[in-house]
Parts: sequence; structure tokens; C-alpha cells
Amino acid sequence: MRAPKLPGPALPLLILVLLLPPPGSAGGPAPFDPTWESLDARQLPAWFDKAKFGIFIHWGVFSVPSFGSEWFWWYWQKEKIPAYVDFMKNNYPPDFTYEDFGPLFTAKFFDANQWADILQASGAKYVVLTSKHHEGFTLWGSEYSWNWNAVDVGPKRDIIKELAVAVRNRTDLRFGLYYSLFEWFHPLFLEDESSLFQKRQYPVSKMLPELYELVNKYQPEVLWADGDGGAPDTYWKSLDFLAWLYNESPVRDTVVTNDRWGAGSICKHGGYYTCSDRYNPGHLLPHKWENCMTIDKFSWGYRRNAGISDYLTIEELVKQLVQTVSCGGNLLMNIGPTQDGTISAIFKERLKQMGIWLKVNGEAIYETYAWRSQNDTVTPDVWYTSKPKDKLVYAMFLKWPISGQLFLAQPKATLGATKVKLLGHGQPLHWTPLKENGIKVDLPQLTIHQMPCQWGWALALTNVT
Amino acid sequence: MRAPKLPGPALPLLILVLLLPPPGSAGGPAPFDPTWESLDARQLPAWFDKAKFGIFIHWGVFSVPSFGSEWFWWYWQKEKIPAYVDFMKNNYPPDFTYEDFGPLFTAKFFDANQWADILQASGAKYVVLTSKHHEGFTLWGSEYSWNWNAVDVGPKRDIIKELAVAVRNRTDLRFGLYYSLFEWFHPLFLEDESSLFQKRQYPVSKMLPELYELVNKYQPEVLWADGDGGAPDTYWKSLDFLAWLYNESPVRDTVVTNDRWGAGSICKHGGYYTCSDRYNPGHLLPHKWENCMTIDKFSWGYRRNAGISDYLTIEELVKQLVQTVSCGGNLLMNIGPTQDGTISAIFKERLKQMGIWLKVNGEAIYETYAWRSQNDTVTPDVWYTSKPKDKLVYAMFLKWPISGQLFLAQPKATLGATKVKLLGHGQPLHWTPLKENGIKVDLPQLTIHQMPCQWGWALALTNVT
Amino acid sequence: MRAPKLPGPALPLLILVLLLPPPGSAGGPAPFDPTWESLDARQLPAWFDKAKFGIFIHWGVFSVPSFGSEWFWWYWQKEKIPAYVDFMKNNYPPDFTYEDFGPLFTAKFFDANQWADILQASGAKYVVLTSKHHEGFTLWGSEYSWNWNAVDVGPKRDIIKELAVAVRNRTDLRFGLYYSLFEWFHPLFLEDESSLFQKRQYPVSKMLPELYELVNKYQPEVLWADGDGGAPDTYWKSLDFLAWLYNESPVRDTVVTNDRWGAGSICKHGGYYTCSDRYNPGHLLPHKWENCMTIDKFSWGYRRNAGISDYLTIEELVKQLVQTVSCGGNLLMNIGPTQDGTISAIFKERLKQMGIWLKVNGEAIYETYAWRSQNDTVTPDVWYTSKPKDKLVYAMFLKWPISGQLFLAQPKATLGATKVKLLGHGQPLHWTPLKENGIKVDLPQLTIHQMPCQWGWALALTNVT
Amino acid sequence: MRAPKLPGPALPLLILVLLLPPPGSAGGPAPFDPTWESLDARQLPAWFDKAKFGIFIHWGVFSVPSFGSEWFWWYWQKEKIPAYVDFMKNNYPPDFTYEDFGPLFTAKFFDANQWADILQASGAKYVVLTSKHHEGFTLWGSEYSWNWNAVDVGPKRDIIKELAVAVRNRTDLRFGLYYSLFEWFHPLFLEDESSLFQKRQYPVSKMLPELYELVNKYQPEVLWADGDGGAPDTYWKSLDFLAWLYNESPVRDTVVTNDRWGAGSICKHGGYYTCSDRYNPGHLLPHKWENCMTIDKFSWGYRRNAGISDYLTIEELVKQLVQTVSCGGNLLMNIGPTQDGTISAIFKERLKQMGIWLKVNGEAIYETYAWRSQNDTVTPDVWYTSKPKDKLVYAMFLKWPISGQLFLAQPKATLGATKVKLLGHGQPLHWTPLKENGIKVDLPQLTIHQMPCQWGWALALTNVT
Repeated sequence: MRAPKLPGPALPLLILVLLLPPPGSAGGPAPFDPTWESLDARQLPAWFDKAKFGIFIHWGVFSVPSFGSEWFWWYWQKEKIPAYVDFMKNNYPPDFTYEDFGPLFTAKFFDANQWADILQASGAKYVVLTSKHHEGFTLWGSEYSWNWNAVDVGPKRDIIKELAVAVRNRTDLRFGLYYSLFEWFHPLFLEDESSLFQKRQYPVSKMLPELYELVNKYQPEVLWADGDGGAPDTYWKSLDFLAWLYNESPVRDTVVTNDRWGAGSICKHGGYYTCSDRYNPGHLLPHKWENCMTIDKFSWGYRRNAGISDYLTIEELVKQLVQTVSCGGNLLMNIGPTQDGTISAIFKERLKQMGIWLKVNGEAIYETYAWRSQNDTVTPDVWYTSKPKDKLVYAMFLKWPISGQLFLAQPKATLGATKVKLLGHGQPLHWTPLKENGIKVDLPQLTIHQMPCQWGWALALTNVT
Repeated sequence: MRAPKLPGPALPLLILVLLLPPPGSAGGPAPFDPTWESLDARQLPAWFDKAKFGIFIHWGVFSVPSFGSEWFWWYWQKEKIPAYVDFMKNNYPPDFTYEDFGPLFTAKFFDANQWADILQASGAKYVVLTSKHHEGFTLWGSEYSWNWNAVDVGPKRDIIKELAVAVRNRTDLRFGLYYSLFEWFHPLFLEDESSLFQKRQYPVSKMLPELYELVNKYQPEVLWADGDGGAPDTYWKSLDFLAWLYNESPVRDTVVTNDRWGAGSICKHGGYYTCSDRYNPGHLLPHKWENCMTIDKFSWGYRRNAGISDYLTIEELVKQLVQTVSCGGNLLMNIGPTQDGTISAIFKERLKQMGIWLKVNGEAIYETYAWRSQNDTVTPDVWYTSKPKDKLVYAMFLKWPISGQLFLAQPKATLGATKVKLLGHGQPLHWTPLKENGIKVDLPQLTIHQMPCQWGWALALTNVT
Repeated sequence: MRAPKLPGPALPLLILVLLLPPPGSAGGPAPFDPTWESLDARQLPAWFDKAKFGIFIHWGVFSVPSFGSEWFWWYWQKEKIPAYVDFMKNNYPPDFTYEDFGPLFTAKFFDANQWADILQASGAKYVVLTSKHHEGFTLWGSEYSWNWNAVDVGPKRDIIKELAVAVRNRTDLRFGLYYSLFEWFHPLFLEDESSLFQKRQYPVSKMLPELYELVNKYQPEVLWADGDGGAPDTYWKSLDFLAWLYNESPVRDTVVTNDRWGAGSICKHGGYYTCSDRYNPGHLLPHKWENCMTIDKFSWGYRRNAGISDYLTIEELVKQLVQTVSCGGNLLMNIGPTQDGTISAIFKERLKQMGIWLKVNGEAIYETYAWRSQNDTVTPDVWYTSKPKDKLVYAMFLKWPISGQLFLAQPKATLGATKVKLLGHGQPLHWTPLKENGIKVDLPQLTIHQMPCQWGWALALTNVT
Repeated sequence: MRAPKLPGPALPLLILVLLLPPPGSAGGPAPFDPTWESLDARQLPAWFDKAKFGIFIHWGVFSVPSFGSEWFWWYWQKEKIPAYVDFMKNNYPPDFTYEDFGPLFTAKFFDANQWADILQASGAKYVVLTSKHHEGFTLWGSEYSWNWNAVDVGPKRDIIKELAVAVRNRTDLRFGLYYSLFEWFHPLFLEDESSLFQKRQYPVSKMLPELYELVNKYQPEVLWADGDGGAPDTYWKSLDFLAWLYNESPVRDTVVTNDRWGAGSICKHGGYYTCSDRYNPGHLLPHKWENCMTIDKFSWGYRRNAGISDYLTIEELVKQLVQTVSCGGNLLMNIGPTQDGTISAIFKERLKQMGIWLKVNGEAIYETYAWRSQNDTVTPDVWYTSKPKDKLVYAMFLKWPISGQLFLAQPKATLGATKVKLLGHGQPLHWTPLKENGIKVDLPQLTIHQMPCQWGWALALTNVT
């Protein structure tokens, strides 16, 4: 299942040809050209918008120091930030290099099935794993990263394969991969960079072959590009790659990608938009987008030195999800496993809590659409979604009103037709139309133990407009 | 083929002289004799019963494998439990020994002030740290454990001193030490053991000198003995030691000890009783006792392989505290730090939650006394404490009644005199006397955000009998 | 000083062009074509034949296990030879890989100047260091071997540069590099191999760029190729490379190479011939050749488990030198440094002894020519060299005759003209012509302390034919 | 702030009782009292004087850094010699301690039978291994050095037992042990020291029990004490121990000891005298003595940074042996194995060369007696030994006279009776009496290959006076 390659004699002359599949091998004419115009016109496979909630996993050699940030190497050696320099000086021999962390990335306790159970129980519908971060270490045995990958060094296992299999064995959970185009310290990239990207040694001998290998071998349904290193898509040849991905790759029908395929493409071209890390605009966007954010406020990779207030609470996480989905986005919530392959208990707790919340309120999240209003103009912290086919509007509210009555200014209700229910509660609720628009809902009186959930609630409004 | 040694009874007497301080050095006559009769008669210093809640910390070389249990060494090498044997076989060279874990116990991130802040914020009033567990590794630079202690190997720091100072710099927090009398694999203990404890090389040259060193150097106010190894107190000479501790040691006025000072003493002699691990009898005891238990249900030391459901929830922990204090006990709740000196975020979360709960409800816990009833005969999960001087009885209830009315069968109220308040709420509550005894309290109607707390509540009843 | 590269846009199409310098860039017409006919016709730079004696140095990650052979990786993982498999099983964790030896290759004590002093004192005129053995680990920071080279991993130093500088700072010592074309386990090589070398990913992206980098950066005067991996020179493109090396490289005027440039070239094409390891034919060859051999009889890399009889004695080494030079060859005598950068004392002793011997007898070795006879037909262990310009013939003899008279059948002497001296002795010796040809030399009577040397002697015969 | 302890004299007496065997347990009256008068009167077991030549082995944790000296720990941490401090700073993490070297002392290649073969082939008749050097690390699983011994840490093997068995399986080779009384950094020793040795915790709980254990368990026939740490024998209780060793220990009949049993005893009391390291007085002593010296001029432990000229040549070693034995001493020649259990090839070479020399000349060494003259007054570098019973005098000469005639001024020969032979040669030599005393011996004319040996020769003179 490798990218097909041309046989023999032709290759040495045109090495690039080797790496690109023959055009049109799939039968009919290739629908997509390697232009943004053509590629941007592709319909996003439907599953993605329905999924709404995914888990991002940042794991790599940076999980060994697990200090400060997954940008450890850069901060330490390039920016020479004192906290990082001192950490190394105080704890390691003078000539210790980042590469020396490689063998310490043991993944000793990594159990893909256990992870997949935890991920599934969170209510997420897809998983995106860092196949390679800016450090260049690949979590699979890349042929183009010999001795700097998880099969040769550290885990001595094909991490991607193990997790892909386990995730796919769970109902309703899709597998995706993050891939950093550039690598901070790859000598060929650095050489290309100092030629102002006139040279292209790095994408030709490293990044492109790896991307083809990755897609052919692991068939990710999300391909999450990152790290253009300041180089344009012409340097990366991303458009040729995307044309192949959409036309011919084994995942051409279901794969989704993002918008980080070269300097200037972010928030403008590609699949769905990510715009910036922790992007959460608070209003509707005309293009499908994703809010990728972290439970640990300050790092994507695991940090041993995180304080308890550095982790978002479950209330804050539910709020992120509710806002994001109301505004048409997906939430990609990040966790950072430890160097030995465990998911820290605090992450497990948050994932479990999300799962509990979604078990009750998932109806207002999954497979919904943005409604005409995203939030309420009168009551703060009320966010709407809808299912037009079912004539349903969902009003998610994050504060339980002291009065026991929830005022919603947006929905227009019709006496006799409109029905209101609290998800997880069952009984239809009594409601009263407000003067102009809007309704007032009498919430049930519930003790804390009777509440369907404790960190946010959803009303299902039938037949409102 | 060893140098012959004099048999049993002669030596112990001689040798002890060496190690005991001269009698009566403190001036007046020593109040305590080295007999249980005399020692048991000592009044427990008052602070201990008032404190109610302490944190136990299990930290040592076992925190390096942090697999299965702090009994790792024993299970692996003595019991040869397959999970432990396999863990070692799969991850370490064939001749790797437990001692080889020593240098890996780095405590790199150990920050005693950070720990002390976390401990204090939990609402605990004392801290008990394992100065030495059965593995024999001492967390201070014991002169009698050269090269198997935290100053020579691993952390290269005096862990006990650092934590003692930090803890004592916090208001209202006392410092205690756990000490294991025996050591699983100490060659002198093993030799003594195979003489059926006729020989006493181990206590003479190791355990007794260390205990004196420990008390003199760090002045712990709790001395938590453990691990009698099946040997009687005559082997350990615990009574002589306790007499010294009570008569002459620098902590003679404030120190408390427990009941694990030799085979047969547990739950019978010594300071307060611990009876068994996780002891929680559910009824009043005639002697001060302590419920030492763990947040991780299955281990005292940190376990990397713990699942999220292995940790007690905050609701379960609050229940433990409430039950224990109502029955006259103290709760000693255990956490297990990691080898690198961090307190795992899940422990931080639980400690913080306990602190939040105690901030509101501490009035019903600290400095209280057991009441005539411990729990209610009508409403389950209601537990009582009292402050006789203030004519106060506290009824802690773990379930908020659906009806909004709490029935309490035990208190006898007096119209006009009896007042009822919900801690953290403020307003006096309306109540009605029940037919014979008891009262019915109308709880306030509160949304989840208005509740003073979410995992248990307390009513203060003034002037009930 | 890198190989010039074409700018920008053209490259992606013709990657190979990037790596080859433009033809004829040096001004005049390039004298050599990439054909064996043309390349074989090149005159070997004169210094090489004059030098006669060089030191080979095998150093790499294999020096870490330093067990069995520098082929450790292959024997352990490919051939699964029990001694190697057991060594790993008994001493390392189950998942330990060869790559894990990388960080242990510390070179902590490596002092290039100390090495250079030792090498120079041996009397050698050139040094050949393994820049990369079959394991693929490069002793310089190769851009094409990121994180599997001595600058990123292990020594964290540019070993080649340090030694090159130190060697060149010594009078009369030249610096050369060994380079293995193939790599046992490089994934691209393995893939090429399984295509029966129809694919050429490995030479294109790894071996050729590295060779150009190596020559441009370090300007070796010996380039010692090895390891064709069963692939023909057309796969390796060695002829193009050699044409560049001879026409345009910075060492085009002085560099010498050997004959290992592709399957079938050995002992047939290239620079000087090596034919086989430890090649020592015992007779004159029509083409310049080199005897590369080892002091440790059984390994090129350092072996910790070598017995003392595994090392050749100084008498055996002198014999190798004498035979080799008499037959027109050069001797390349190998040592294997330790992982921490020391040269084991036994190697230092042998090198020092060679230096002592050459200080006395170097006149009969350096800058000599093969004579018409290589050895004597009457007296065994007598080997000849000559200096025609000086009308000198040297007869080196390895056994001192008991009679005190040395019979030499080959030289034809002339009374009155012919003179005989013992190197290191000074006085002309008395000699007598033998019946037909040959002479009988009366050696001086010397006690052991008076002897110019103890492991072989040389007579300088002037005016013999 | 330590538990007060009874001052000085009372305890030592009591405590010793515990550790000493009951007097007179062996039947008859004990021949030796614990006084120097009595102990010094003991006859040295005969085997020792006959043996003449032993090998000293310094091996321990200091073999891991193998830098500078076996006093590494002291020089680094106590004297803070810059070379040592810098070595650590440049190569290890800031908090690395000497104890951290323990696990790195692997002894991976240690093969006691191989060692014993090498030792035996050297011609040595006894072996002395450092059972514990000043660092305190014991090469056996001492019960009194738990977790700082070779069974618990590093080799995980009983080094002493393995070597003892292998040595004893060789004919004519005896096994001895070196033991350092004090330990540089043992906390109990340091505490005793700062009490000016009024306290005796260290000998009571560490050194004495260990010495008894050592002798009982391994039955060494040489017990080589060292390191009195400035404390008198009354502190060490050496006299009691020696009385036990001579009266009752399992080796009481054959054991020999030296003179380092307390401050002031060296060169005055005990068994044979060592006086100082590398003691070689050049004249006869009235008391049996031993010259303990090292092949590496500058260190007893292995040094990776030794240059080739730091090793004594075989000529120098033979000279040491010849001088020492002529003057009534034994030679104890030291080697330092590597941390992984190999004997460096240079040591193997020297040992082998000694064996070659002794095979020829051993007759003039083993079981000889000092003669009336030790060296010759006329010819330098001639040293005598004798075998009175056989009427033999041996004249060992280190320089072969240029004249071929050896002048010996000391022996008085008798025409007709006196015979002269060269060891290893066989034929009686012609000799001439000199004018007053002395003889002139005509040495045979031998080529270098015919010589019985190359680094010293011996004449056997029968019937001289």
C-alpha cells in the first residue's frame, strides 16, 4: 500500500517523478487541478461537519523534558530563554543535546486500546495525532527519517499504526494525523531557507516523500498540516500534493485537510480553516472552521510543571464546545500524553467529564447546524444550534437562572406548536411567549442530584422560527 | 562460617545502654516508664484531635517504577508476582536491581514551598511524610543508611528538611514523619529474623539510631511508626524509645504517635490507634483513632498505570472525612508524588476540592467533638459533630433532599431557642419539630451556582440536645 | 567550499543535476571522462607510493559495544549469531537497539592532537579514518544523516575536522577518509536493493550528496571507498563522481583512491588496488596496491574481549611492512580506538615500536622502489627494496644469522665499488663475493643493547646490480 | 541535636564483646594475646617468603571514571583539584555524585577463570584483590554495606567469591584480600574522627563486623590492611582482631598480614612490612617486607588517560623484581582492571612478559634467600640471591656486557668445585678467578634469537662462598 513508483531507468533523471503518482491512474479524469481555485472548490466530506468534536494529541520527544512547552527545543537552543537554558544546565551534562532525549521517549505504558477507550468515552468523533512535530521525530518508521523516528529510537514501535488500528476498531471514531511541513533544525531545510527557498532539497528528499508514505500507509481521514516555516506553497508543492490527495490517494473520498499549506494560505485556502491556534471568533463564519485548543492553557505537549489552575475546568471546556459549535466550528481539544505513554489523570478526568456531558447533551451538538442566531441577545451565555429537518432549535445555557425562568429573546414560538424540553429531563416544560419575540421557559425545580448534568444544559425547542 | 556471636538475651541489655540518653537528663523525674501501662496513660497533645484532617505522603524509590504499588520490590522479588516480574523483564536489562532505581529518583521538580501551598490549601492541618518506607531508603541523609538515602543518591537533597521548613512556614500546619521499623531486605534484619529475633543487630545498629537521629534533627510532631516485621516490641525496644520521646525528646510536649510499635500493639497500645489501613469503623471508638486512606484506591505510592476510576471522587472523599470525624477519628488522606517531585494534577484537583469544601464546612469539622449520635436513624448519610461549649450540633448531609426538607430524627429542638443555619448560606432556616424527637428543616431553594458547595452540606443547630 | 549548485527553478525537475557540478567549470577541458578507460589512465599522485606506511582508524558506534567485531550490528540483527544475540540479551533491556548505542559513543577523552602525535611517532605518512562505516553513522555532521552523526549524537563534535586539522599540523602526515558506499540497514538502500538496484533513491539522496560534501569540506588526500553492497558502479554513479574528483574537486591534484567503487571494480579499476582485506601477495604486482590489515587479528573495531595473543607482535608487524613494501605495496595498519576516544595502550605500544623501528630502518622503506628481486632465494625472510638514483639496494632481514654471516644470493657485487652497511650501525661491513652471484656479509658482533633495533634489520648495499 | 551518647571508654569495651567470638573456642589455650609483643612474635607462614611475586589488583567504583587516580573521589570532592572538578563538570550533570558511578561499574566482561589464567601465566604465586578501598564499596555482598556493594549495585555478583574460587583452582596460586580500615566519607567514621576517635561507632558497626565476615567467608591467605585514617590501633581494635585471626580464624595457620593496622604501626608491627607504597630500599632488611608497586607509574586504579610512557617497561619491571627479591622482599605488582571487567592489553602484555622471564629465571627467584651480598660492588645492575641447601648463588644481571665477559666481585670461587651456568642456556660456562675475590665469566655468544630471554639474565653459581 505504498505510493506506486515508476520502475527503473527513468528515475534517476527525474527524481520528482518518482514521488508523484502517475496522473489519472484512477480511471476517469482527475477532478482537481493543482490550483487553489480548483482545490478550494472541493466539497468537504460530510462526516466532518457532523462530528463537531475531536481530540488532538501532541506527543513526541518534547514529551520527555515535558517542561515549558512542546517548543522546548526551539526555546532552549534558538531563543535561549533562560528558564529552558537553566533547566538543562541544572539537570543534564554540559553536552547533552535534544537528540539525547530520543532514547528516553520510552512509551513503556502506551496501550493504544486503552487510549482509544478513553478517547471514545469523551464523546469525540475523531482523533488527530502528531505524526511529526517541528522537531522532525516521526511517530512511525519513516524511511526518510532513519534513526530519528519511533521505530528506530525510543518506543521502538509504530505508534501511528497501533493507534490507527485501535481507533478504527471503535464505532464512530475517525483517525487523523498532524504533520509539520518544516523542521526547526533540519539541515536541508535550513540550507533551503538561507537560499530564500530557491533551493528545494528539503521538500524533495524529506517532506514530500514522507507525506506520500504517511497517507498511503496510514490513510488518515484528517490531514492536519502545520508549520510552513515561512515558505510559500510553491516551495512545498502543496497544491500538487493536495491534487493527488483529492484525486487519487486511498482516502480521496473521505479525507479532510486544513488551511496550513504554505505561507499565506491560512484562513484563506485549503480544506477547513483553523486561522490561528485557539481560534474562537464568537460569530458565524462563511467557511467551515475548527477551534483547536488545549486543556492545559499554556502548552500542547505535556508539562510536568503545570499547576492545577493551568488546566481549564470542565465548565470552561463545555463553554468552548458550545460556543464553537454554535458558530459553525468544530472543537479539537488537545491533550499531551507523557513520555511513557500514559494519559495524565487530569486529562482522563476532563475527557470523561466531556463524555458525561455529551451523553446528555450530544443531541444539541452532533450533526447540528448553526442557527440564524448564534447566541441570545438578552440572556448571556445562551448559544443556539439547530436541526432544520427536525424543526428543532437547541438553546444551550451555561448558567441556571436563579429565578428558575429562562428568558430567550431569539426564538419565535407558536402556541400549540412549539414544545420545549430540557435534555436529559424528559418532561415538556411550560413556557410563555414574550411580548415581541422570544419566550420565557419555566425550568423544572431540581436538586443537584436530579440535574441531568452540572456544567451546562440544553433546551430542545420544537417548532420555533 | 560467620564469627560466632553471643546468643540472645545478654546483648540487648548492654547495647541499649549505648543508644539511650542518660536517664533524667531533663531535670525533674521522668514522667513515663518504658511500660505500656505508663506510656498508654499519656494524654494525647490536644492539637491532634482538633486538627481532624491531615495529608499522608508516600514518596520513595518505589515512585520510580511507580507501577502497581509501593510494595513493588517485595511483589517483584519476593512474591514474584507475574505482572511485576514481566514489567521488569520487558523494560530493563536482565541484571537490573531495585537499587538501580535509586539514581532515577531525581526529585528534579520538587519544590517544597509549592507542595506546602498545595497542602495548606487542602484544609489539612498536618502532613505526614514517609521518612523511610520498607525499602529502607531514607529521605534524609541518615548516617546509618549511607549511600541508600536521598542525600547521597537520587535527589541529592535533604527532602525532609526542605519539606519540614516549608510546612512550618505555613500557619496552622504541622509536620509529621512516617518511619518503617523493619526493612524488607536489610541483611541484618533478615539475619535477626532467622534467629527468631534472638539477635538484635538491626535495631541496634540501624533502626534505633535512625529514630533518635530523626526526632532530634527534624522534630516531627507526628511520629507514624509502621512495619513491625512480625517482631515484638521487646525486639524493637519501642517502649524505651517512646519513654525517651515522651520524657526527653525535643518534641516531648507536642508529639503524637500511633499504635504500630511491635507485633500485637496495633489497636491496643501507643498513641492514637490506626488499627488497619483504611480503617473506618462507622461508629464511635473509646480511644482516639485515625483513618489513613488513599485517594488512589489501590496504592499509596504513585502509579503510572492507574485508571481514572481508580481515584476516589471528591464526593467519596468528603464522605470519608464526614464519617471519620463524626466517629471521633482523624482522616489522613494519602497522595503519592512522582519520582521527579511533582504532585500529579489529579491529586492537586482533589486537594483543592477538599480545601474548597472545608472553607465552607470546616466549622463542622475542625475542633469539634463527637456527638451523642454519630449518624441519623431516619435520613441516611447524615453525620453529626458538636461543639458543646457553643451549644452547637452540626448535621452534615451528603444528599440534598428532593423535597427540599431535611428530616433529622436525632436532635431535640426547643421552639424559641433552637436555630438552624446552612453553613455558607447565612440566613436562618425555618424548621418544624417532629412528633417525638427530631426536626424537619426547610432547606433554601438554591440553583447549583448558589449552593455554598456541591459535595455535601452542613447545618449548624444551636441549642438542640 | 561546497559543491556549487544550480540556482532555483530548474532543480526540482532534475535533482541529480543539483548534485553534480557543472562540467568543465575549472577552465580548461576536463581531462577525465566518466569511463574506467579514462579514469584508470590517471597517474597516481607521487606522494602515495613514497609514503609506504599509513594508519587506518576504525571508529564509530560499533566502538561502544566493542564486542566481537565492527560488524556487530549485522552479526547481531541480521545473522543472529548467538554470541552477539546473547551478549545483548544478557546486558541490555529487551528493546534495546543498535541506535541506542549512539549516545554512548561519547569520545569524552578524544584529543586529536594527542592522536596525531601518536600517529606521527609511528612513522606513518598518512592516516585514513572511517568517516562512515556500514552502520551509516557519520563522524562529521553530515546534512544527509541528520541525527545519526557525531555532531548531533554521542560525541557532539566534528571528529573529522578535529583530526584533519591536527594531522595536517604535523609535518609529513597526510589525511585520508574511508567511506562506506552502502549502509546495512538504510531503508532507502534496502528498498533500492529489493528493486535489484533499478531504483536509486539511496545514492541520489544520501551517498552522492554526502561524498561531495565530504570531499569539499575536508579535502581528504586518500578517499578509501568500501561496501558496494552488491551494486554495480552504474547504481553508485561512481564514475561520474571520480571524474569530478579528478577533474574539479579541491583535491584533484593530490587525491588517491582505491578500487572499491562498485561490484566488480575491486582489483581491476580505480586508483590503487586493495583486492581483499589483509591482501599480501608475496610477489610484485604490476599496479600500485595496498595491504590493509589489522593489529588485532580478528577485528577492525576495538574489541574489549580481545586476548593478548589476538594482537600481532611487533615482529609480525615489521614482517608485514617489509614484505608489503618489497612487493610494491603500501601498508595500511589498522587500530580501533575506544568509545571514549582513547587509543588502547597496546596499540600505542605497537605504534611506538613501529616508530622506533622506522627511525632506524625508514631509509629502506620510504621512497624506495621494488627491486628486481623481492626476496632472497637462499636466505629466508630477506626482502629487498631499492633506490636506483642512489644506486642503493636494501636487504631487510628478519632473523639474525647464528653464524654472524648473512648470505644473499640476489645482489651482484663488484669488488672496489660495492659497499655494505647495517642501518643504524654506521661502520662499513666486510663482505665476500659468492661463487656465481651473491655476497656473504659479515655482520658485526653486537650485544642486545648495541643492536640498532630488535625486530628486523636492513643492509644498505651500494653499487650492486 | 543528636541523642546524647555516653562518652568514650565505657561503651567500646561492652560493644566489642558482642562482636568478638568467645575466647578459647578452639580447644587449647590461645597462643596469641592482643598485644604487639605477642602478635609480632608470630612466625610468618613459610609459603609467603618462598612465593616472592604476587599481583595486586585495584578494582572498584573508581574504575568507572578511571580518570587520574583511584583517589578520584577524594581529589574531586575533598581536595577539589581542578582537573577532577573540571572532568566532572564537563561530562556529568551538575548533581552527579560519586555514588552515581556505582551502577556503571558493570563488570560485564569479568571472567574469573580468564583472569586466573592470566595471573598464573605471569609467574605470580599470590594475588591480592581490593575487597574494599577507601570509597567503602565492597566487592562482596557485605551485610554491613547494604546497597553499597558489588552484589546489590553494579556487577550484581560476588566478585570476591568468583575470583577466590578461580585462583584456588590454579596450582600454586594463593588468594589474598586488601581491606581499607577507614572510609573517606563514611558518616560514622567522620563523626568518630571529629570526636578525636573517642567515639567508636564506625569500627563497631562497620569495620570489625566486616573484617570477621570477610575472613570467615573467603579465607584469604593474605590480609592486606590499609588506611588507618589517622586513628590508633586502640580505635580499630586491630590487636584483638589479629589475635582472633592468628588464634582461631579458619586461616590461622597460613594467613599473612602486613603492617598497616593503626597509626604508628607501619614498618613497626604486624606481619610483613610494607613501610610505604613502592618501597624498595635497595638493601637487606632484618624483617620480611614487600614492595607493592604499580605498572602504571601514577595510579593503582585503571586510568583511561594514561600515556604509553606512563607504564613501566618490562625491563623496568624485571629490575624491580630482581632488586626486591635480592634484598629479601616480595614484589606485589599492581594492575587495575577496567570497569567492565577486562584486563587492559598492556597489562596482559606485561604479565605475560613477566611469566616468560620467570619461566627461564624463576629458579633464581622463587624459594631463594638473600645472600650475604645483595648486589655487586664492581658491575652495576647485578643482584644476588641464594639457595644455601643447594650450595647455589644466583647472580642476576640486567645488562649484557659488551665484552662478553661478566665481572663479579662478590663470589669467591674454587677451581674444580665452582660451576657456572646461564639459566635457560644449559652449557657450563668458562670462568676465571679474579685476583683477590671474584670471578670473570665468559658469557656465550648468542644472537638475539638464541638468548634465553631479553630483559635480564641469571647465572647459577654452584659452590661459591
